[in-house]
Parts: sequence; C-alpha cells; structure tokens
Amino acid sequence: MSSEFGKTLRVGVFGESHGRAIGVTMQNLPAGEAIDFNTLEAFLDRRRPGKNALSTARNEPDRPVFLSGLLEGKTTGSPLCAIIENRDARSRDYAELSDKPRPGHADYTAFLKWNGEADLRGGGHFSGRLTAPLCIAGGIAKQILARKNIFVGAHLFSVAGIADEAFSRVPDQALFDGIAQKEFPVLNDALGCQMQEAIVAASQAGDSIGGVIECAAVGFPAGIGNPMFDGIENRLSAAIFGIPAVKGLEFGAGFAASSMRGSENNDPFRMDENGNITTTTNHAGGILGGISTGQPIVLRVAMKPTPSIAKAQGTVSLSKRENAELIVHGRHDPCIAPRAVPVVEAVTALVLLDYLLEEKL
Amino acid sequence: MSSEFGKTLRVGVFGESHGRAIGVTMQNLPAGEAIDFNTLEAFLDRRRPGKNALSTARNEPDRPVFLSGLLEGKTTGSPLCAIIENRDARSRDYAELSDKPRPGHADYTAFLKWNGEADLRGGGHFSGRLTAPLCIAGGIAKQILARKNIFVGAHLFSVAGIADEAFSRVPDQALFDGIAQKEFPVLNDALGCQMQEAIVAASQAGDSIGGVIECAAVGFPAGIGNPMFDGIENRLSAAIFGIPAVKGLEFGAGFAASSMRGSENNDPFRMDENGNITTTTNHAGGILGGISTGQPIVLRVAMKPTPSIAKAQGTVSLSKRENAELIVHGRHDPCIAPRAVPVVEAVTALVLLDYLLEEKL
Amino acid sequence: MSSEFGKTLRVGVFGESHGRAIGVTMQNLPAGEAIDFNTLEAFLDRRRPGKNALSTARNEPDRPVFLSGLLEGKTTGSPLCAIIENRDARSRDYAELSDKPRPGHADYTAFLKWNGEADLRGGGHFSGRLTAPLCIAGGIAKQILARKNIFVGAHLFSVAGIADEAFSRVPDQALFDGIAQKEFPVLNDALGCQMQEAIVAASQAGDSIGGVIECAAVGFPAGIGNPMFDGIENRLSAAIFGIPAVKGLEFGAGFAASSMRGSENNDPFRMDENGNITTTTNHAGGILGGISTGQPIVLRVAMKPTPSIAKAQGTVSLSKRENAELIVHGRHDPCIAPRAVPVVEAVTALVLLDYLLEEKL
Amino acid sequence: MSSEFGKTLRVGVFGESHGRAIGVTMQNLPAGEAIDFNTLEAFLDRRRPGKNALSTARNEPDRPVFLSGLLEGKTTGSPLCAIIENRDARSRDYAELSDKPRPGHADYTAFLKWNGEADLRGGGHFSGRLTAPLCIAGGIAKQILARKNIFVGAHLFSVAGIADEAFSRVPDQALFDGIAQKEFPVLNDALGCQMQEAIVAASQAGDSIGGVIECAAVGFPAGIGNPMFDGIENRLSAAIFGIPAVKGLEFGAGFAASSMRGSENNDPFRMDENGNITTTTNHAGGILGGISTGQPIVLRVAMKPTPSIAKAQGTVSLSKRENAELIVHGRHDPCIAPRAVPVVEAVTALVLLDYLLEEKL
Repeated sequence: MSSEFGKTLRVGVFGESHGRAIGVTMQNLPAGEAIDFNTLEAFLDRRRPGKNALSTARNEPDRPVFLSGLLEGKTTGSPLCAIIENRDARSRDYAELSDKPRPGHADYTAFLKWNGEADLRGGGHFSGRLTAPLCIAGGIAKQILARKNIFVGAHLFSVAGIADEAFSRVPDQALFDGIAQKEFPVLNDALGCQMQEAIVAASQAGDSIGGVIECAAVGFPAGIGNPMFDGIENRLSAAIFGIPAVKGLEFGAGFAASSMRGSENNDPFRMDENGNITTTTNHAGGILGGISTGQPIVLRVAMKPTPSIAKAQGTVSLSKRENAELIVHGRHDPCIAPRAVPVVEAVTALVLLDYLLEEKL
Repeated sequence: MSSEFGKTLRVGVFGESHGRAIGVTMQNLPAGEAIDFNTLEAFLDRRRPGKNALSTARNEPDRPVFLSGLLEGKTTGSPLCAIIENRDARSRDYAELSDKPRPGHADYTAFLKWNGEADLRGGGHFSGRLTAPLCIAGGIAKQILARKNIFVGAHLFSVAGIADEAFSRVPDQALFDGIAQKEFPVLNDALGCQMQEAIVAASQAGDSIGGVIECAAVGFPAGIGNPMFDGIENRLSAAIFGIPAVKGLEFGAGFAASSMRGSENNDPFRMDENGNITTTTNHAGGILGGISTGQPIVLRVAMKPTPSIAKAQGTVSLSKRENAELIVHGRHDPCIAPRAVPVVEAVTALVLLDYLLEEKL
Repeated sequence: MSSEFGKTLRVGVFGESHGRAIGVTMQNLPAGEAIDFNTLEAFLDRRRPGKNALSTARNEPDRPVFLSGLLEGKTTGSPLCAIIENRDARSRDYAELSDKPRPGHADYTAFLKWNGEADLRGGGHFSGRLTAPLCIAGGIAKQILARKNIFVGAHLFSVAGIADEAFSRVPDQALFDGIAQKEFPVLNDALGCQMQEAIVAASQAGDSIGGVIECAAVGFPAGIGNPMFDGIENRLSAAIFGIPAVKGLEFGAGFAASSMRGSENNDPFRMDENGNITTTTNHAGGILGGISTGQPIVLRVAMKPTPSIAKAQGTVSLSKRENAELIVHGRHDPCIAPRAVPVVEAVTALVLLDYLLEEKL
Repeated sequence: MSSEFGKTLRVGVFGESHGRAIGVTMQNLPAGEAIDFNTLEAFLDRRRPGKNALSTARNEPDRPVFLSGLLEGKTTGSPLCAIIENRDARSRDYAELSDKPRPGHADYTAFLKWNGEADLRGGGHFSGRLTAPLCIAGGIAKQILARKNIFVGAHLFSVAGIADEAFSRVPDQALFDGIAQKEFPVLNDALGCQMQEAIVAASQAGDSIGGVIECAAVGFPAGIGNPMFDGIENRLSAAIFGIPAVKGLEFGAGFAASSMRGSENNDPFRMDENGNITTTTNHAGGILGGISTGQPIVLRVAMKPTPSIAKAQGTVSLSKRENAELIVHGRHDPCIAPRAVPVVEAVTALVLLDYLLEEKL
C-alpha cells in the first residue's frame, strides 16, 4: 500500500523527483464528472514553487497530462492516470548526498530500506514534489465535492509560533475562495506579514522554520464514517501523515481538549432555526465516534521546518563509517507550510470523497 | 474494516458494552509463541477499572477466555480469538439515553449511521470497554516484541495541563516496568499527585478532565516502514485514533516542531561509541520518511475529557425534535487518560509487531 | 487476510476442529436486519453431519451462540460474532498423524508453514468443520438477500461422473426451497439415487469420491461489479476456493465455452415481454466484464474426493525422514460434496451481499 | 480495487483501448533488481498481435516507456510506472456500438455501471489490449522469479476441443523456453497444427473459437501460502479471472478430481533420492490447504471464444429499447487463447512473486 490510500476511491502516487515523470492514478472515480481544467490549474498554482520570494526558484510548469480515465473532459469510471513530466530536474552531483545522509530527510532510512538502491536524487520518491500529483487528484476531488455543496479550505494557522486567527465555527465557500486567491494563505494579512518576516529571517540565517495548517470541510453530511479503526479521523490521519514533513495532527479542540473539562469540551446539541440538530460549539471537529456530526470537520496539521538548510550540519559518511559535515546546496523553501496548504486540502478532499462514494452520496 | 486494523497482523475487535461478550480476533500471529498468562493478566490489570478512587467502580474481572489459536499455551498460527464475558452490565434504563444523545458521545452519530438500530447501552460498540480486548491483543504483542528486545512503555504526559517529565532520549525496559507497577502511571510522582488532585477536583465538581499520554518504543530496528501513505506514522495514527476519546497525535517534536528552526529540529547523525549510526537528538521521534531510524519511536496522544459528566447538559430529544436537558447517571472515570496508558501501549505494540511480521524479523 | 474475505462485508472465520470453539465475525452488516433463527437452524442443518448413512457420525448440534452484533434478534450495525462450542471432539491419538502427514490433507503444508506448531488435531483450522461458522454467516446473508428478492440455491451437479440435470436458464425460489428440503440435494432424484449408490460403493471399498456443485443466484440486479480484478468472478472465486476441497470453478458455460464457437457462446440481447433487456441464453453465467448482466449468476464448483480414506496410503515419517504407511482411522464422509452444497450457497450469498452493501442497494 | 491486485506486490492497470496511453503501476517491488529489456521485449512479443495469420493486424509496437521506479535499469524500490502510448487506434464510428451492445462483450454491463459515460471505443478499459501492461509487470516478475530458480511457463492445452499433450509431472525451464520460441505455443506441434486448422475454419466461417491454457510454475518453495481465503488458489483465481474472456479455472486434477476416488486423487508422500519429501503424483497441483507443497503449481484456464465475430448477431438498441441486429466490423483474433498464453504466465508470476516478497524469500 506504500504510496496508495483510500478504500473505495484509491489514489496511488508514483515517481521520483529527478525521474522521467511523476504521476497519480485514481480508481473508482464516479463516471461522468466533468473536470474544469482552469479550476484545476488554479488549484495546482497554489502549490507551485517560485510564486514569491519565499519559495524555491525551480521552474515547474507542472502541467498534468491525462493518460486515461477521461473522455471529452469527463471521467469514464475506469482508472484515471495523470502525469507531470520532470523537465527542470538538474541532477547535480548527488554523490556526496548519497554517502552523507541529510539530517531530517529520508536519505538514511531509504538507504537502509532499499539497500542503497533507492533513487535519492532530489529526495527521490520522498520529495515534496510528489505532492503535485496528489494535488491533481485532490483538485479533482474538490470539484466533485463542490457539486455536492461540500467545500474544503485551509489556511496557515501558525508559523514560527505566530498564529493566524482560527476559522470561525462555520467557515464558508467565500472565505475559502478568498484565502485561495491570496499569495500568502492566511485569514489576517497583518499576522501573515509577521509570519513572512519570520520566514525571511530564518532564510537569511541560512535556516528554515515550521508551521501549522488548519483545514476545514463544510457541508459534509452527518452520519458518515465508521467506529473504531475506520472512522474519519483514522482515514484522514493515515492519509495526512503521508504528506512529507507532517509530524502532528489534531481534530477539533485536539491537544487543547486535554486540559479542558468535559463540561467545557462537550458540544451541547441544539435544534437550530431550521429544525435541524446542531451543536453550539464544535470542539469535536465534526466527528464523534469516527462518524460525522454534520458540523464542519476541522483539523490542524503540524509541519516541521524544511530539513534542507544552508547551515553546515553534522552527519556521517556511510562508506567510511565516520562523522562528517554536510552543507546542503541548492535553494529550498525556508518554510514548506505555505505551499502545503493546498496539499492538506487535497488530501482531506480525497478522504472525504472516498467516504461519500462509499455511501453512494 | 470498521473495527479491524493491521496489514499482516490483522486485529479485529467485536462486542458491545452490555452485550453477551466482547472479544478480539488476531490473524497471522506467528506460530509457537508462548503466552505468559500472568504477565498478560498484569497488563490487563493496568487498564482495569476500579483500581483506585479515581476510576469507575464497575467490577469487571475481565478474564479472557481463549477460544482458538492456542494449543498448550502457544500460538498455533491460525486465528486467535479471545473473549471476555460481560457479567456486570446492568442495563438500566437506557430509554432516555436512546432518545437524548449524550454530548461528546457517539450516541447521535451512531443513531444516524444505523438508523436507530445501534445497541447504545453503555455506549455499545463505542464504549471504552472495547479497549479491554484490544489490550488482550496488545499484551500478547508486547510479549512477542519483548523476545525481540523491543519494549513499549507509556506514561501520563499531562493531565489538566499539569505536565509530567518527558521520557529521556532513550528510555529503557526498567523504566517502563517501573511505571507499569505504579498505581498512577507517571515518571514524577510529585507531579502525579498534582494531576490526581486535579482529577479529584474535576470529579467533585461533577465534571471530568482530559490528558495526554506519551508512549515510546525502544529497540525497534532501523529501516522498517514505507514511504508516503504506509509509513509508521500513517499506520500508528490510523490505529491510535481508534482508541475512544483520542483527538490529537504527534510524533517526536510534533506540534512543537512547527515553531522550531530546521537547525534546531534536524537530528544530526553521529557514530556512537559502538560504531553504530545514531542521532544526537530525536525530534523525528524515530521516524523519517515513514521509516524507522533506529532511535526510539516516540508519540504523544491527546485525550479529551470523559464526555460522561454529572452536570446537566443541553441536548435534544430525537423523537420530539426539541431542545432537552440531560443528566448522565452512573459512575464514570473523571479522567480516562490514566486507564488509557496501557491501551496506547497495546495499540503501538500491535502496529510495530505488524511491521516486524511483514519483514519476517 | 488468511481467514477473512469480503470488502465491505468482512467475514472472518476462526477456530480449530478440536479447540474450544469455532466461530465467525461479520463486519459492516446493515443495521436493523432481523434474523430468523429457525430459518438459520434449518440452513445449518443442511450441512450438519450425521444426517444420513452417507455422512460422518460425529454428533454436532452446532447451535450458534451470538456474542455480539445482535439486539433483540436484529443486527445493530456493529460487528457480529457467533460461535459454536466444540463438544464432541475426541482428541484421540494424533501423535501418529502429526508425524505422518495424511496424503491430500494440509498436514504437511501446515507443518512447514507453522514450523510444527499448528494444531492439526482433526485437521485443525483446515477442517471442514470450519464451514459451519461460514454457514452461519451465509445463512444470515441469504436472509438479507431474500428480502431483496435475491435467492441463492445449489444442487449436486455430479458425483463420480454421474450428472444431475442442470439448472434451467432461470431457476426460482421454489426450486431452491425444494432442493433444500431434500435429504440428498439433487434436481432429479433418480439420478440422485445413482450418485448415492456410487458413494456407498466408494465407502464400502474404504475409499471416497468427489463431486461437482452447481450454484445459481437469481434476482441479482444488473450493472453490479467491477472491471478486471474486482469483478464478480474474481471475488467469488477468491472466496469459493476457501472452501476446503475445492479444486475447480467455472462460470456459465465455463470450460465448455472453450470448445464452443463465438456465435454459439455469445448471448444475444433481446427485449423481453416486459420491455426489459434480457439475453436468450446465459452462457456468460450472468457476468460480462466482471459486472452482472441481470441474468442468473451461475457457477460450478469441483470438489475433490475426501482425502481421509480407510485404505492404507503411502506417506513419510517427518521425524525419521523415511517412507511410511498410514491408515487413517475414524469415520469420514465418503463424499463431501453433498454437505458442501449449502456451503457453496453460503459463500456465494456472502459475496453477492458484499456487492449490494457496497452499492447501498 | 477494481483494476489492482496483489497484497505486498500491488499491481494496478490503467488505460482504455483508444485513450492516450495504457499502463501499469507496481508497488513494493524489491530494490536493486536489474531489468533485462531484451528479455522483456521478447516476452511482450509473445502476446503481440499481428504475429501470424491467425491474429489481428493492428500494428502495435507496444514499446513500454518507464516513467518511474527505475534508475540505470534497476528497480529503486519506489513505485514503478510503465506506459504504452496508443498510436494505432482508429476511433472509427463507435456510435452504433455505443447504442447496440455487442453480445459477449462488456458494453452493456459497462453502460449500466457507468450510466453511459464509459469510454467503450475498442472495448475501453475492458479491452484485451489492457493485457499488454499486465505483461510488462509479469515479464518483470518472471525475471525476478528466474533469479530465484522459479520458472513459469504455459501452453495451449486445448482449442476447439483439440487437446495438446499435458505438461509432464515436473516440467522445466528448457521446456518453457522452447514453447516460448514457438509461433504457436503447444507441446506437440502436430496437435498444434490441428488447432490452427480449427481456428482458421472458425475464422473463415466468420466465427471464433475458445481454448484452454495450462500453466505451471516449478521451483516454488514448499510451505508458502495461507489457509482458507488467502491461499494460493484464492489469490491466483482472483487475479486470473481478471484476464478478459476467462470463464473457468482449475488446479491440479481440477474438475477431473470430482470423478476420481480418494485413493486415486491423493498424492502419496515419498522421500526422493536426495532425501527430500516429494509426492509420487501431483493431482493437488502443488497446493494443499492453500499452501504450496513444493511440487509444481499447475493450473488450467478456460477462455471463451472471442466475442467479436463477423456474423450478424441479435442485440438491442439501448436508445430505442427494441431488438436490433449488429455486425461487428474490424478484424479480431478468431481465437484469443494463443495470445493469452503469456498473459496467464504473467499473472501467475505476479501472484507467486507477491507471496515470495511477503515471505522475504
């Protein structure tokens, strides 16, 4: 299952950073869904590098080529495959890297797992570049969900400890669209400026910084999910931890709930003005017992600082079995979190669509 | 897959709180593994209610009966099934509960999912009681892991915001055994006393409180796991979120990494005194790119406060479609986290054993 | 996955022939389905040994005990577990058997796989006795299918080369019910007598004989299934080969189609009198491209002769690594096929229900 | 899972007959396996159309392009993706076909399943053309198996009722290589000539004919597999029925076992000259209780006649809901079985490699 996830909607990612192409397969998409390629491009643009001074200059047009599963722009029901050719990859000297694993990267663990046979150029299959095909799949999922009035949006919740405002209890499509159009995806632009300053400061120090992303899905129907090990939190977490650099995940009040009292954390049920059952708060993040409550599904994702930094770092020589020093060359995003915002949306959308397809909704 | 998890080692849990029995099946256990029933009992005792003043008085001897998969105390290789009969369940009047969903519980979502047909007495299949069979399975996994010099231990990391000490960089078996013998599973007993006071305070206020559990696995070999969606974090998270009341999970530095710089968070590689590759810190929690580094696997689990509280709460009547008030009777653990400590160990052990069996280690 | 199958409806079987109990778990059953226990008993009776002179005398009341998943006789939606206690198992001396593997049984292969640790008493987990829990699950599936006007029936298609009549193109419930009430499940009782004579002859010769079972499902809707590797034939075959002694399987015209011409084998489409699309023949056995056509699903299952025979057989001593002779004591069914008829129905019903649940039909 | 199979070695096929490309992904291939592209080409050539007068003239060079998972001709351990571009597809008028489903094809069932949105040009995703990527994957599997001294070979067992000789009890690599080099894959060329005459006769009559393929794997170690639902027969059957036109499958003596006596069908164990345990016959086809015996794994696959025939056939107009007549134009293989011989080898090799990877052998 390594690079696949999903139960009904199966998504599989393939490719290495400096290989011929990267891509994604999607199985069991419903038939007859039109894909709006402009909307998809706009979504992919949000993750694309080189957008601003804060991200890597690698120029990747990343235009997806659809090999199967589409006929006249609509899904056919059979497996969809889309690829992105790798054009800009310069396989500079990776000889040093292959002997001296970069701290914080998967170089060493991949070396062990594949007995030195892995393609580690540019991070290989572990590269953040693999999130591009994930966004193709997720962008398609978002379009299908939107037709069902389900919207998924995300923003930078914090960077370097500087927090954006949190989502309101029930965010809406307009809010998500607004964030999506921003160059720096936050709710409060003033706070966003402070975050950007922190990123620039880290970058100028030859260093990097981490961040937290908050994601919400609105309009997801109540009563969807499963108990115990196949609930919404289970499937979402299994997929979200597949995004490179994710080290933490919480739903609703999350870690904060651990210092709350029950009377405070429990979300009282109430009839709303339309005669529907709602809750007055949403500390559960829209999920009770693995099953949706009908309230927004809310999650927060902690991303570690980019492991590639300009500063010299301690490592070892695998061949000489001795300590060594390493300087990682090249230009890397000093903070990966801003570009990861649409990736979190993509994965969330894919998991939620998986459930809907399962329920034939 | 609802109540199952694992890829090679398949674990399935069944039963309802007030049904005839609860139980667990384990598929693909290795053959010939002796089970030490005393050790298993001792492990189950750590989760058992009624141990002290802080936990519910329900008297559950919870002695497992093994129906299959064992011959003369050793595993046979074919599916193991163990059950615990429900003797002490008093199906007091659940009529009110079935109409008025308890806030913070799965009553409402289960009602929707199963069209009012779920057995919700005592929480039904969502009851914390289902963690007992999970501990049978996990206790067996821990014994098999220990024979491979892999040890899994956990402690209360915080309750009500009161933090225990964190695990040292490399905890050991002795430390884990020490915690396991304590009535209140913390490293620093003085801090543990403060936690207990906070629990008593919540209880006396007719309320409950949450907590965080820290779990570590030492001795797990390097190079195990998979990239992207089937890595150690993915499988552990999918399973850990199956424990009732878990709302957050982080590995290594976790959420704290999001405000760290790369130079700080990256774990430099170094040769140790024995000529092995190690890292000087372990912010990665023993996992890079989904694959083990050979350092301890470290995770922290946030548990919400027990949703059953004595205070009156707002809810709705499902039949009358109007607001209502609910008082949950019965005695419940004011803080579920202490009893969940062995449950987190159990699930962690099961997932790690799953990987080892897959690797034939 | 060893002893489990199904995608949405997960069925897992556990137990050994001479262990404490055998049983079955079912996950993702729909909630609110009443189980008619008399009908279920009647179904289990069809597979029960000792019914007539032809089958083993082991007295197994085989009354299932439901541990979970039922409330007041109706499914709750959470995992169902049912067990049958092993009362009549006499663990006579299996020492010889464990050293001298019985030809045609799994003794030798199980010995290798589990390093001599398997419980092989009475065939252990490989025993035909494990089809009893399978019939509990299948009997429940048949009841749920019947409410959707889908009926599954089977008969002995041939024994010792003596063929019964084949099912007509569209068999019906009444026909299935008629066969179910017969002591010897054939369409043509005269031919059934000949089969029984052949079985008696084999038995009197200290030998055994094989047979073929034909199974049909009527009322299954058109358009259900999947292309390539998850079609109806794929899932049915994966499950059917789990029945002990099955060595062949064909759908529709099956092997006969291999010597037919296309013009003969193709089923022409036609409008029927009600304006529905039908086919004039059903050589496809109701499945094209892995997807149902709406015609009866028809399959035939080849079962080898019971490997336990009274005649002396050549084997080896595993301990002495030398040739040996073996006489299998005890009484065994000289032909397993008659008792396997309901088992084939059970497995077929479970797979078809799996698809229906997936489609939310 | 529609178009995927395998547990450890996951194989997924995508593409439509007249789409942009068809392809295959392979997950969890071992790292460091060199691929001999010449050998792979030679294998793909065996399935290629247009080889002789008997098969369709469509000119498909079918040269695979590897997009990922290879570095300098060796597997890297991360997902491999290979594609074949569709160059020769002429989307002639499929308007008639899309309204008038071809008997024996999946047109009608795919129409139902995907609400008329499926790409059915040339059979779409159901086309026999999809077996080309399957052979890429299988050809790679065969190379890896050969390094472990496991060889998989197949031949035409019968066509139009004309039978080739059966494999000897233990066929070997040389025999398999010999068949692979023949234009018509049989053991006995004289019998092969008769088969070819029967194919030509069917073709000249505007008709088609079916066939049976026998496949064997030698060198597969004993003790591999699982009981009940995950045994070798289960996994092989689930995959083999994914090959278009397969309607029957048997292992070892198969259907013939159903009219054999136990004393005849049981394979006595014996010590061979090298002190290894063997059996004197192999009616079990190398599998007992789902687990390998160490004897050759032997299976036979029944393929129906090509449904595309030149003769006029009865069908319906889906739009007009009335009976219609259809003449399928274009040139099609009058017997698909000869070209399916390497496909059966490919699928068998993939399933056996899946088990070996699982066992880390």
